[in-house]
Amino acid sequence: MIDPLALYMRRFLNFSDEELLRFKQFLKPTEIKKGEYFLQEGAICQNVLFIEEGLLRIYHLHNDKEIIRQFIFENSFFTEYESFLAQKPSFYFVEALEDCKALALHYKDLNALYDSSINFLRFGKMMAENVVQHVGHRYMSILRDDATTRYNNLIKERPKVLQRVPQYMIASYLGITPEALSRIRKNMAS
Amino acid sequence: MIDPLALYMRRFLNFSDEELLRFKQFLKPTEIKKGEYFLQEGAICQNVLFIEEGLLRIYHLHNDKEIIRQFIFENSFFTEYESFLAQKPSFYFVEALEDCKALALHYKDLNALYDSSINFLRFGKMMAENVVQHVGHRYMSILRDDATTRYNNLIKERPKVLQRVPQYMIASYLGITPEALSRIRKNMAS
Repeated sequence: MIDPLALYMRRFLNFSDEELLRFKQFLKPTEIKKGEYFLQEGAICQNVLFIEEGLLRIYHLHNDKEIIRQFIFENSFFTEYESFLAQKPSFYFVEALEDCKALALHYKDLNALYDSSINFLRFGKMMAENVVQHVGHRYMSILRDDATTRYNNLIKERPKVLQRVPQYMIASYLGITPEALSRIRKNMAS
Repeated sequence: MIDPLALYMRRFLNFSDEELLRFKQFLKPTEIKKGEYFLQEGAICQNVLFIEEGLLRIYHLHNDKEIIRQFIFENSFFTEYESFLAQKPSFYFVEALEDCKALALHYKDLNALYDSSINFLRFGKMMAENVVQHVGHRYMSILRDDATTRYNNLIKERPKVLQRVPQYMIASYLGITPEALSRIRKNMAS
């Protein structure tokens, strides 16, 4: 039987079956229906999710305008890291764009896992380092690249976004208007 | 005797004297004179620095224009994380803006430390998580805040930047022209 969680975790570290079993004992199956929220602004993010099915978006409201930070697809871990790590109220909303099935790991259980096994600690460090690399990459891209370049990178790096996310949300993610995104797409097609 | 490195590290974890001594055995005293480079674009970042004295900047060249990512002051750790973690060529330059004294820790020695002691692994995880929070914060600020707000935040959060960094570099860090920064400063003074 294919176990996407085990596959994912073993891409980083050679976890034993026993370790994975222990890890899974802490996980709570969770459903988030399309349009429902995993997290609201002002709440403290208490869980890490492993998304088994579905798609989430994390966004921020600024002067009533949505600024989309990221889209999160199945077969990956997700948490609102800044709120989760500091256990402080979040600036973000995390909403399901499709019906989601996920496994939730609570903050206190994750810390218990870190204390119980060096491999989980290694994994936590790798996850954080992974995020550093991704956020750093996106941060530079926003400073450096024009919208057309960023759209091209998105198509190349995350084709699923184009198939499953509405155009106006992709525009918000790129930091441009829906009209500007239409122009970019027309210019690319011609 | 005050030991800024020990002070810094013990803010995060209760390292024993023996652990700190072992850590220090791997550190190589390094000097980087004003205008010299710790790292050039295309090189692989091999070291983490603990800056004892001085000031560095990390920047990227795009169409011959410098885009400053961060200023790094004394009494902090620094590495070009994306290059260091993946051991791949860097997109950045890291230049001393003042004469620097630093302690350098090599990639292979850091990994040996991670393997030798769970506390160093914990520390490495905390450092990565710290960077996640800082970069995430700055990333949102660029998406959300106008230049005046970002300048005000800079004054509040990192007053040393104003005292020790030339105005045109602060403008580059904020992503605006030196003229726009002058206008912001004038409006604030009036």
